[in-house]
Amino acid sequence: MNWRDGYIAVDWGTTNRRAYLVDGDGGVTSNFADDRGLLAVPADAFDAEIAEIRVRLGDRPMLLAGMVGSKGGWHEVPYVRCPAGPAELAKGILWAEPGRTGIVPGVAQRDANAPDVMRGEEVQLVGAVAAGLLPKSGLVCHPGTHAKWIAAQDGAIARFRTTMTGELFALLRKHSILAGQLEGEVEPGPAFRAGVEEGLQGANLLSRLFGVRAHHALGEDAPDDAGYTSGLLIGHDLRAGLELHEGGAIGLVGDLALCRLYGAALALAGHPATQVDGERAFLAGMRILAEMS
Amino acid sequence: MNWRDGYIAVDWGTTNRRAYLVDGDGGVTSNFADDRGLLAVPADAFDAEIAEIRVRLGDRPMLLAGMVGSKGGWHEVPYVRCPAGPAELAKGILWAEPGRTGIVPGVAQRDANAPDVMRGEEVQLVGAVAAGLLPKSGLVCHPGTHAKWIAAQDGAIARFRTTMTGELFALLRKHSILAGQLEGEVEPGPAFRAGVEEGLQGANLLSRLFGVRAHHALGEDAPDDAGYTSGLLIGHDLRAGLELHEGGAIGLVGDLALCRLYGAALALAGHPATQVDGERAFLAGMRILAEMS
Repeated sequence: MNWRDGYIAVDWGTTNRRAYLVDGDGGVTSNFADDRGLLAVPADAFDAEIAEIRVRLGDRPMLLAGMVGSKGGWHEVPYVRCPAGPAELAKGILWAEPGRTGIVPGVAQRDANAPDVMRGEEVQLVGAVAAGLLPKSGLVCHPGTHAKWIAAQDGAIARFRTTMTGELFALLRKHSILAGQLEGEVEPGPAFRAGVEEGLQGANLLSRLFGVRAHHALGEDAPDDAGYTSGLLIGHDLRAGLELHEGGAIGLVGDLALCRLYGAALALAGHPATQVDGERAFLAGMRILAEMS
Repeated sequence: MNWRDGYIAVDWGTTNRRAYLVDGDGGVTSNFADDRGLLAVPADAFDAEIAEIRVRLGDRPMLLAGMVGSKGGWHEVPYVRCPAGPAELAKGILWAEPGRTGIVPGVAQRDANAPDVMRGEEVQLVGAVAAGLLPKSGLVCHPGTHAKWIAAQDGAIARFRTTMTGELFALLRKHSILAGQLEGEVEPGPAFRAGVEEGLQGANLLSRLFGVRAHHALGEDAPDDAGYTSGLLIGHDLRAGLELHEGGAIGLVGDLALCRLYGAALALAGHPATQVDGERAFLAGMRILAEMS
């Protein structure tokens, strides 16, 4: 596509979307973010939404990434199989209008023992490497509702693993018998660290979670149940993710508060982490895909 | 209390209650079950509910057990510490009216590394042993929203462990991204057994749960996600519970469909199980507590 005179890059997820007008030198000249994620857009309204983004940001070529390319999005873009680097992703772009409006594919790991999928993180990964924010090979963690652990090799996604950590914590906090005990911001304090240690050691999640309740029922001093529970889950998450680790510092991409918790947990596990700005990684990734497409 | 001319035994939980009029020989002469559990009874309405039970079943002495003795119930009855057998439980009964209306205490494990509480299962445990349905020593599992694994020694509750298995499965089925995939009855078929094996081996719950989603997103043949997920959780549950096992057949008390699943899972783990009728165990337990109080 013709990116030299500027283009629009959109990160369109389930709940939110962020759109950027990028000039030929890679600078963002205009942008907006709103809550018009997939859940807020009826299936037949995507064409109008795309037109409206151009009204707001300019009549430029556009690349979209994220859940907008899933079955519940605008057009379903077939997954690219890993190993997947910038070339495979660029080749997999689905053009709703040739050269003008394209959707970046997600990545699939078609392994019977570890089937996995991603849509969105692949752009940040190739962007972080292209921008020199992360080395070409190493482990990268994207904490979130569904956390992604990506083993990069030579700038491509070699293998990855997704965990339901964020979603499970949200379910417990919102709907479980522990709901009343898990309110407030999670801080990486002593209770969080104790939970991480137990999770790293593979403590049984089902019994430890009830332990949080029992503790409370016994009227014992429970200063930070939210911290402990979050730590327990993140410890288990690390246990899953670190199986893909082959050495070196681990990259952390995404929400700052979550990256702070994961960074503290990784430090407890003996692994230094490098924090990467997710927006910068995304824009760098869209840039390289725009250039290659 | 004077149980020889008949008494009323009530199993009063969070959601449901069951009340029985028992004659001096231990036979049930009248009974009812309804959904007037704690959630349906305002705090100031318990006296009226008790009076109404006597209107329906007769003006007899009454023993209540279950969550009715918790903070959110009628009167909070202090937990008895384990090891707790019939004598300790009988001694811990809280008499709302002396000799006439009593509430059986729950049991607490005040162990900093494994704090735990129960209210209700203790009656079934001592009853099953008293009625000769289970040996005096051995491991007993009560599957449910919060499954209990009880290590009995000489007819007393020596140690126990609670797991959030049933609640977690319900959360996933009702509120998670997997909701649409987990509908229907769970059967102990191949997918269930595969899940149990993985759980027993300590497979990472957080990544395996997302695997159920990925499997689906990849359009792969997924004949029984509910069975697999239930098996995965029950396998993890067994892993926690079997740590208390010191040999012998394992007793299973409670809901028949759940006991069938747990029995199948225990068989996979190499442990024979003995199914015990929960109602019969409850009535035998209330009988022995009535006699001792």
